[in-house]
Amino acid sequence: MPSSPAEPAAEAVSTRIAEPALAQFIADVLRACAVAPEQAQAVAAALTEASLRGVDSHGARLLPHYAKVARTGRINPRAQISVRHTGPGTAVLDADDGFGHWAGFAAIDEGVALARSAGIAAVAVINSSHFGAAGCYALRAAAAGCVGLVLANSDKVVLPHDAIVKFHGTNPLAFAAPVAGGRPYLLDMATSAVPWNRVQDYAVRGLPVPEDAAVDAEGRPTTDGKAAEALLPLGGVRYGFKGAGLASMLEIFSAVMTGMGHCGELLSMAGPDFATPRRLGQFYIVVDPGRFVSQAAYDAGMASYLKALRGVPAQPGREVMAPGDREWRVERERLATGIPVPGQLQASFEALAAELGVPAPAWRE
Amino acid sequence: MPSSPAEPAAEAVSTRIAEPALAQFIADVLRACAVAPEQAQAVAAALTEASLRGVDSHGARLLPHYAKVARTGRINPRAQISVRHTGPGTAVLDADDGFGHWAGFAAIDEGVALARSAGIAAVAVINSSHFGAAGCYALRAAAAGCVGLVLANSDKVVLPHDAIVKFHGTNPLAFAAPVAGGRPYLLDMATSAVPWNRVQDYAVRGLPVPEDAAVDAEGRPTTDGKAAEALLPLGGVRYGFKGAGLASMLEIFSAVMTGMGHCGELLSMAGPDFATPRRLGQFYIVVDPGRFVSQAAYDAGMASYLKALRGVPAQPGREVMAPGDREWRVERERLATGIPVPGQLQASFEALAAELGVPAPAWRE
Repeated sequence: MPSSPAEPAAEAVSTRIAEPALAQFIADVLRACAVAPEQAQAVAAALTEASLRGVDSHGARLLPHYAKVARTGRINPRAQISVRHTGPGTAVLDADDGFGHWAGFAAIDEGVALARSAGIAAVAVINSSHFGAAGCYALRAAAAGCVGLVLANSDKVVLPHDAIVKFHGTNPLAFAAPVAGGRPYLLDMATSAVPWNRVQDYAVRGLPVPEDAAVDAEGRPTTDGKAAEALLPLGGVRYGFKGAGLASMLEIFSAVMTGMGHCGELLSMAGPDFATPRRLGQFYIVVDPGRFVSQAAYDAGMASYLKALRGVPAQPGREVMAPGDREWRVERERLATGIPVPGQLQASFEALAAELGVPAPAWRE
Repeated sequence: MPSSPAEPAAEAVSTRIAEPALAQFIADVLRACAVAPEQAQAVAAALTEASLRGVDSHGARLLPHYAKVARTGRINPRAQISVRHTGPGTAVLDADDGFGHWAGFAAIDEGVALARSAGIAAVAVINSSHFGAAGCYALRAAAAGCVGLVLANSDKVVLPHDAIVKFHGTNPLAFAAPVAGGRPYLLDMATSAVPWNRVQDYAVRGLPVPEDAAVDAEGRPTTDGKAAEALLPLGGVRYGFKGAGLASMLEIFSAVMTGMGHCGELLSMAGPDFATPRRLGQFYIVVDPGRFVSQAAYDAGMASYLKALRGVPAQPGREVMAPGDREWRVERERLATGIPVPGQLQASFEALAAELGVPAPAWRE
């Protein structure tokens, strides 16, 4: 298996950009939008690493959106994080309406520090905003030798099971764990069958949407991208009570346990209101594996499991992969060849550079 | 939606039994198998509450199996739990090859105690065995005012994505949270689309297995129960990389982080070896919501979310439910009318009573 399937090539690749140049451009643009350097840096890091791993839906393409909301009131470009410790293993981090990426990295760092003393930690982030790919923060825990679990919600686009109207977000769950001598284990998934932007992309290209993934305005399954109004939860029409249940669990963590809005209350990421902070909650759990097994036992157990999983006989022409395997493969390729940039995104990057008076991106080809 | 669909009526109900009578009979049988009273009590509680909630696959029907393995060496009937505290929020609980239910309740109690001081806790259970319905332990945390997350693996019956051979277990995840003035929120799900015993049940009755749930010996999807050799992960052929990813995450928690066997290494629950302890790992996380929001904010947030979810317009003739709603509805019915017992189970209970010299179950009708 691909650990997650490759996203369809939305548009012809127009050019490529090296990782450092992309990170530099994103930070330049955001700083030019009066975003404080540490926030700009965090967003640049999160978008760049998502693009590197092939998670294009949550990578560079989000920059024009973020550059907009940094200037329209939704995001507080000069936000100050404040952390309230509430127990040996717990904290509440107030993102002050800043970027969710910046809050996410800070929350994981706080969680790692707490887990180092308490063995496990939970950090609830309040007054946050969209944070890009959830995997970024789980990976930060893994880089520190810990296991990280990221639980978040988003605005409504997914049907609850047996419903006809969208309610849950694509509510992501990410989990990462260290792997000795290799890139971390990484599960980063939405609890819908497919992402909404994949449906939109198929619609634009006049292609049928994959089956059992989207519904029309009456809540009937459809493969017509133009008729699609919402997504089915993971599990589809038959088994969607499980995907919906997971989405729901993520609401409890990210909304009920943080005091922030649930999926049905959040302002849409896509507007039309770009002036009001969205006040999202996110929930981070960090665990120190060393409290349960020795480093040697952990490393051996992980290696043994991953080897066994990857060794399971595959369908003809396929490959059984562990979560993250595809992402790290894409990362290796893109570190070598650059991150592909579709024509429309290239144009909007050039326009942003001109508008804000920052150096145009250093394209690779 | 049903929060989870009703299991098909496997066999004609022969009789019914009241909850206390069932718990009494289970405990009597296990004690007669030389199982220590506290272990017998824990198994009786777990099976009875699962049966009450309608989770018949993990309820009373497991008693004959447990009565067997308590006497064949797999289970240590006189096990002694030992707990090693490894941090303000962490502990390792050695189940000494006793019943997983007994270890599970003890782990959650330990987790609640740790979470009361540290705010969050993780307890890794080692040298454990099958623990019935994962929801039982999550609910025990909710009953104590905490949020509980239960992560476990099991022996192989589910295909990894794109595989042709089974590898993962049905690896369950359970999550429960308190609800003011009502029964707790409860998500209790396997990461396969359907349970294996449902496939077996359809096969026995000559009915087609639900689509996109099972595969034959070559890993090809099948609706022929007799040809079914393994299960597809949640998400089926198309989106099963997500269900497989979740199953895999549960392996990291319950095997890698406990030092116990992964799915591919575990002895099968169904034998043929019933003499060797299975040495399962299970992982429990308990969080005190009061470290993040006030009790009033938590209660209001939960009520608001559940009301909004249940209020989402449903498909004709259906109902949008929250996770747990169906289970509590079944519990209300069964508290009133008794737990249904199929004829075959009734006969095996009567046979156990005669064999072990314990009073026959007090059937209700």
